Amino acid sequence: MRKSIAGGMLPAIAALLLVTGNPGSASAKSIEYADSYAQDRAEIEDLMARYLFAMDYNDFEAYGATFTEDGELEFASGATKGRENIKATAREFKERIGEFYKTADGSPATLRHVLAHSAIRVEGDRAWGRSLWFEMANDGPEGALKMGTFGIYEDELVRLDGRWLFSKRRILNEFIPNRHSGPGNPVADMDALAEAWLGEQGQ
Amino acid sequence: MRKSIAGGMLPAIAALLLVTGNPGSASAKSIEYADSYAQDRAEIEDLMARYLFAMDYNDFEAYGATFTEDGELEFASGATKGRENIKATAREFKERIGEFYKTADGSPATLRHVLAHSAIRVEGDRAWGRSLWFEMANDGPEGALKMGTFGIYEDELVRLDGRWLFSKRRILNEFIPNRHSGPGNPVADMDALAEAWLGEQGQ
Amino acid sequence: MRKSIAGGMLPAIAALLLVTGNPGSASAKSIEYADSYAQDRAEIEDLMARYLFAMDYNDFEAYGATFTEDGELEFASGATKGRENIKATAREFKERIGEFYKTADGSPATLRHVLAHSAIRVEGDRAWGRSLWFEMANDGPEGALKMGTFGIYEDELVRLDGRWLFSKRRILNEFIPNRHSGPGNPVADMDALAEAWLGEQGQ
Repeated sequence: MRKSIAGGMLPAIAALLLVTGNPGSASAKSIEYADSYAQDRAEIEDLMARYLFAMDYNDFEAYGATFTEDGELEFASGATKGRENIKATAREFKERIGEFYKTADGSPATLRHVLAHSAIRVEGDRAWGRSLWFEMANDGPEGALKMGTFGIYEDELVRLDGRWLFSKRRILNEFIPNRHSGPGNPVADMDALAEAWLGEQGQ
Repeated sequence: MRKSIAGGMLPAIAALLLVTGNPGSASAKSIEYADSYAQDRAEIEDLMARYLFAMDYNDFEAYGATFTEDGELEFASGATKGRENIKATAREFKERIGEFYKTADGSPATLRHVLAHSAIRVEGDRAWGRSLWFEMANDGPEGALKMGTFGIYEDELVRLDGRWLFSKRRILNEFIPNRHSGPGNPVADMDALAEAWLGEQGQ
Repeated sequence: MRKSIAGGMLPAIAALLLVTGNPGSASAKSIEYADSYAQDRAEIEDLMARYLFAMDYNDFEAYGATFTEDGELEFASGATKGRENIKATAREFKERIGEFYKTADGSPATLRHVLAHSAIRVEGDRAWGRSLWFEMANDGPEGALKMGTFGIYEDELVRLDGRWLFSKRRILNEFIPNRHSGPGNPVADMDALAEAWLGEQGQ
């Protein structure tokens, strides 16, 4: 279904790109969107929205359900693996974050995580994403909206039984030391990962 | 076209889900995306963008055209029904809001409504959406950008003559008393509504 | 593939719409989404995300690669044409903007451009977009997130060798004199442009 097939030299090229400063243009030029791209992207966008609604409304079952059974979550305070551990981690995160985001009168603030634009790369039953996120809450003066922090998601996804799930979500935050994204273009890195994977499959 | 057909037990399950605290995970696991999901979602996303551009640029005809003839709009100050009433309500809203959002020199601010992520469920010619929105304007000190409020849209859509339209848009706002969303996951509620509707159709 | 073919009278109608105050509703009612809309929109959304990641992470090669060889970029400080010139312009922009966006300690701020909702119109190998954007950075007090400015993108795209590219991107900014969008609905203007183009093709 892919409009063109990347050649067998790609693993070598991808490895090369990973060590050079900015692999941007070479990778970007080689993207080919399969005819099924729109459907895959639509389902992945829906997954990403369901992930955030689950997080913001404390629905930890639905949150965990966006990951594979052995999925991985990496964030500012550490990393966790396995759907059950991820659910527990999300619950702890929400309890802890309630101590930092408080309204003027001291009650827990209404905090929202927001998904902005996403670059999404799909190859068969594998996908990779790079998305910008930010936070906002009602913890400003007199209950006003105050912006929180921003960062990016670096995602790996797999399709299992016809359904896209996160196999790994890495949450980077530009306001936390050692959790910054870049300095290279995260999308170039994503393309190199996708192309390395394609190479491994002999495609 | 649906990849799997939900069984006849769904109405009972959906009813059950509606009365329990948090129906999240069970509903979430049962979503099946039809092959036409991408096309429907793309058209609905375009509709939602056109809705906001129409609102922000005072194009009340185009705003009204995003609703069915007997569509419903529910917002902070009340509810209205019918395309002509909705157009009139939007016009009144924009006149009134101009009194609240003013630049430092007293002129009406440039106000933008922003659509963030959306979970969208489509079943045949019916769809349901849960989307995060926020506002921003140039009404900060010395004309700076100042954030306004945020909330969610709870949408019902129908496809009429091949075109998706809002049959009902409910606008919730976390900064207005009695207009808050939640506390349950709005997406779980959406799934239960969709499944109840599927049950009524005997699917 | 279009579900209906717009008649030969469209050029005249479009011309008429362009000179009247607000062409909104008439154009909006006449949109017909081709069966390939989802795929085109998905690829264009990915292009727009890649554009912003390239800009924010100083990947000027990847930035330039989102334009056609003779693409045009119009922004606050001027206009430029041709992929090589566009790359150079982006590089200069990033160097200059680093002087305006500084953190509390005087180092260049981490600046992010954000893509919000987009209305996208596709007709064959041509497309037009109207999207809302805004900026945010870590240049607030004590390194806090501070919002920057907002505006819209007015885009023209073409599909070349199966790949969507910007043939023209016009960046409007509501915080810079003479760079404001509107006052008419930018989406109505987009529809009129698309319909005028269809008319020229005799469709």
